[in-house]
Amino acid sequence: MGGDHGPGIVVPAALDAVGQDPSLKLILVGDETRVGGELDQHGGSRHPRLQVHHASQSIDMDEAPSQALRGKKDSSMRVAINLVRDQQAAACVSAGNTGALMAIARFVLKTLPGIDRPAICAQLPSTAGHVHMLDLGANVESDAEQLRQFAIMGSVLATVVDGLDRPRVGLLNIGEEEIKGNQCVKQAAKLLSECDINYVGFVEGDDIFKGTADVVVCDGFIGNIALKSCEGVAQMMGQFLREEFSRSLLTRLAGLLAMPILRKLRPRMDPREYNGASFVGLRGIVIKSHGGADRKAFLNAIAVARTEIEQQLPDRISASMTPILQHKEAV
Amino acid sequence: MGGDHGPGIVVPAALDAVGQDPSLKLILVGDETRVGGELDQHGGSRHPRLQVHHASQSIDMDEAPSQALRGKKDSSMRVAINLVRDQQAAACVSAGNTGALMAIARFVLKTLPGIDRPAICAQLPSTAGHVHMLDLGANVESDAEQLRQFAIMGSVLATVVDGLDRPRVGLLNIGEEEIKGNQCVKQAAKLLSECDINYVGFVEGDDIFKGTADVVVCDGFIGNIALKSCEGVAQMMGQFLREEFSRSLLTRLAGLLAMPILRKLRPRMDPREYNGASFVGLRGIVIKSHGGADRKAFLNAIAVARTEIEQQLPDRISASMTPILQHKEAV
Repeated sequence: MGGDHGPGIVVPAALDAVGQDPSLKLILVGDETRVGGELDQHGGSRHPRLQVHHASQSIDMDEAPSQALRGKKDSSMRVAINLVRDQQAAACVSAGNTGALMAIARFVLKTLPGIDRPAICAQLPSTAGHVHMLDLGANVESDAEQLRQFAIMGSVLATVVDGLDRPRVGLLNIGEEEIKGNQCVKQAAKLLSECDINYVGFVEGDDIFKGTADVVVCDGFIGNIALKSCEGVAQMMGQFLREEFSRSLLTRLAGLLAMPILRKLRPRMDPREYNGASFVGLRGIVIKSHGGADRKAFLNAIAVARTEIEQQLPDRISASMTPILQHKEAV
Repeated sequence: MGGDHGPGIVVPAALDAVGQDPSLKLILVGDETRVGGELDQHGGSRHPRLQVHHASQSIDMDEAPSQALRGKKDSSMRVAINLVRDQQAAACVSAGNTGALMAIARFVLKTLPGIDRPAICAQLPSTAGHVHMLDLGANVESDAEQLRQFAIMGSVLATVVDGLDRPRVGLLNIGEEEIKGNQCVKQAAKLLSECDINYVGFVEGDDIFKGTADVVVCDGFIGNIALKSCEGVAQMMGQFLREEFSRSLLTRLAGLLAMPILRKLRPRMDPREYNGASFVGLRGIVIKSHGGADRKAFLNAIAVARTEIEQQLPDRISASMTPILQHKEAV
């Protein structure tokens, strides 16, 4: 049970989740004394749909994934993913070390047929609602074939999560013209246009937030940098707003009036509303909550897992990969 | 004389510039009838420090750079850059097609000794003031050696523009740890740490706006996507703000009070304040104004050119490359 806050956030969020959803059962994996203590504190120790599963180790937020994978066989993360592999759990939700979670999930669960590497897919706000973007950092380099796999997985995810029939899939590039971009995106564009997805062509950085596409595909290095850059700009704008409104008594007064309105902005931008990134391409469902997630945000990550379980995301991704695998075998 | 607005913006901005700076002389390159007409309209046709230089062609904003380079020998862009090559002008400022400007500048002016490829460097706002970032899209792929050249050029630029003694140079990556990132950034990190610059290590996307570094180095594909993604987020936040403030009579009233404060935000974020990206690495000074730049923004781009002329930027970049060239020759 990881993240910046550990059981102090995860346990109350779990109680909220089982309270809201009478069909949900949760297994809390972690140090049983700490988890039990949190459950006691929140009056949840006898909840019939909450079970505690002991794990003697935990993985630090800055621990090297390779070390976490090799050296900590009884970490809460490893034990939780083992439960998914053994079909004792339908999904794993974690706020812990992203790299370690990915390394362990990949090692224990393996990738789906036809998927070379899993990807991290998250929802981001857009003026049209939201957009699914992948890969956000599972891989530091991807070739055109992997970008095609990301595109198919993203398309399936948008279909099941948003109920879209043919989600529009865009490929992130530095221009919309076909002649632009590096070799990898040019090759990927060719592969995507031959795929059975609704490929809408290249999109640029600013298109992510314009609703130009329902799914934006890029390699993990670029996706991670773009995502963090955007977080940086939003934080800077927030800070500038606070500074301007606290300059004088008059601006503070105006701020008092404006605050309720500015606060309504929050749910439209709030990373908590979008918390719960999917590790797609694995033989199992793994959801990564932001390390700094609070109770509400973690609850959202559980809801994402719930949707993917109901919609049997891994099976549907598998089914979408079948034509490509058959084509490859035929060639 | 290009950009989305052409002489209608450039001519009045040029008049402002010579009005503000009694030592500045400007050559207005473009269709002499149109430019002359604009000058007449603004009462500037007899200004002693404004000269009109005719060019019979212009390059469209969406014209392919290769076509612009080969097919339009008398475009305003080509003529203006020829003036720089022939030392009749100390710098070229253009709001035209970025790709064409780069292709022509590279072809006509050539790169400085030791520089494989020029880069686009712009100032972006940060909570600490501003940051110089390069490459923002001159190149779609760069190797470690080119990233080193970008780092040196960015360091020189920050030194001359901001008067910094040892500007902090960061390398954009997906984590701050040395083990993270792709092969290219890892190799570049090694080269940068051996360079005579103040290399501060890897920075992440959100660091761009935190003032962690004075110069952020990345390849043009990533830089362009990060920049446009950030523009997209800022635009979305602006739109959300406007929407929330116009929901009801009450929010409109609050908006009236908040507007003067929100407006003060603008100069801190306004791309116009940061208008004028430098094409660094060329044997001459070329400044790219945003295509949609208004009079004030274009004036700023002229000021950037002015600073780089005074500080003899190309010569100083050349001087900084000398030790590396000598080292290479010695090896």
